Amino acid sequence: MVEVENYLLENKKLKIIQRKDMFNFSLDSVLLSHFAFISMKSKKIVDFGTNNAAIPLILSTLTKSKIIAVEIQEEAYDLAVKNIQLNDLTDQVQLVHTDIKDFVKNIDYKVDNVLCNPPFFKVGERSNINENEYLQIARHEIKITLEEIIQCASMILENNGRFSMIHRPDRLIEIIECMRKYKIQPKRLQLVYPKMGRDANMVLIEGRYQGNEGGLKIEAPIYAHNEDGSYSDQVQAMFLGD
Amino acid sequence: MVEVENYLLENKKLKIIQRKDMFNFSLDSVLLSHFAFISMKSKKIVDFGTNNAAIPLILSTLTKSKIIAVEIQEEAYDLAVKNIQLNDLTDQVQLVHTDIKDFVKNIDYKVDNVLCNPPFFKVGERSNINENEYLQIARHEIKITLEEIIQCASMILENNGRFSMIHRPDRLIEIIECMRKYKIQPKRLQLVYPKMGRDANMVLIEGRYQGNEGGLKIEAPIYAHNEDGSYSDQVQAMFLGD
Repeated sequence: MVEVENYLLENKKLKIIQRKDMFNFSLDSVLLSHFAFISMKSKKIVDFGTNNAAIPLILSTLTKSKIIAVEIQEEAYDLAVKNIQLNDLTDQVQLVHTDIKDFVKNIDYKVDNVLCNPPFFKVGERSNINENEYLQIARHEIKITLEEIIQCASMILENNGRFSMIHRPDRLIEIIECMRKYKIQPKRLQLVYPKMGRDANMVLIEGRYQGNEGGLKIEAPIYAHNEDGSYSDQVQAMFLGD
Repeated sequence: MVEVENYLLENKKLKIIQRKDMFNFSLDSVLLSHFAFISMKSKKIVDFGTNNAAIPLILSTLTKSKIIAVEIQEEAYDLAVKNIQLNDLTDQVQLVHTDIKDFVKNIDYKVDNVLCNPPFFKVGERSNINENEYLQIARHEIKITLEEIIQCASMILENNGRFSMIHRPDRLIEIIECMRKYKIQPKRLQLVYPKMGRDANMVLIEGRYQGNEGGLKIEAPIYAHNEDGSYSDQVQAMFLGD
């Protein structure tokens, strides 16, 4: 299968290799990387289900912290390895080829940040018979569910550590409930609208493990596109790496 | 104490009498009235804590349905009576001078819609020693709590009936949890931002009693003001009654 090399962030000369038949780096990863509050004092950041490592690549332009990225799918993991090498980030980014559920059981440290761009759909929901196995795993909760992801994050976060996720608005209630079940208190919310005047199509949410209840902030929204369909200035700047 | 008569919605010639020392009709009531999904088929709409009846007045321009408005404070109730008479709405709007908790126990019918612009603050929170009793009751959970309001709504809603509320973002998590506790499933959410680029300062939320889980929609946001502090076109149109 043909691998294609492109710029992920143009101004940062950050490159990414992708495969047309697999999950491709997209707006989600850029939005989540920019939304997550990455402290200069962060020690360890974990990306659950990193696929071809788009999120660690972008995070590497924002922090010098150690990034550990977990991926279960062999072909995606292989691409991630190539991408980390291609951008000379092997010192900062550690890739782990395993199941997230096993990863959290086996590590002996806690982390400051967990990020996740999870499969958006439940098994059977909006399934597309043309989807290959790679896409199915990336887009549907085949290997891990929303609740399991949140539970896994709670197992490795330090007290007050942050969990950040991007997801669909129609699952926001479930996300909030799961976060609270596992003691991750929602603290920041940001909505992404495809265009002005339209319903939101993505939510960004951050919670803090063992944080106090209440005090949610809802930040200024993001509009992904202009009226003509081009990326908005706000999103364009993220893609350039400004 | 001096009563002042003003236009509530200019183009509709809707008038409102207010008292400077009491809770004054404001943006909240206008936003909530416009957000609430009022079906032409609605039979009965209830406004919990109507104060001087701003919400029923605005609703009367949007629907011919029967509106029942409950107010515990005598002085506010007296103003509400005057406002309903002033606008010749005594046939459509029924005012009830009682505690919401008693109201829901004593009625023998169910309703399609419950609206509430509740006290935004817990007792003791952001209290202002200069606040008189009228303002304290309108702004603080002295007579009724958030949870009690939601429980009361659930007691009088028909299956699939709608509960709509405006509140502060930092209590959104608590609101969602209470709604779900009393079987009101959140279905619509809209954020209100004071200006472009700022955090949201109000949330509008609607849930359906005994509705299905999931399927939340987050609608296009509202910006209350322009950069120069004037009302945005969107809000200006609501105040004009367009």
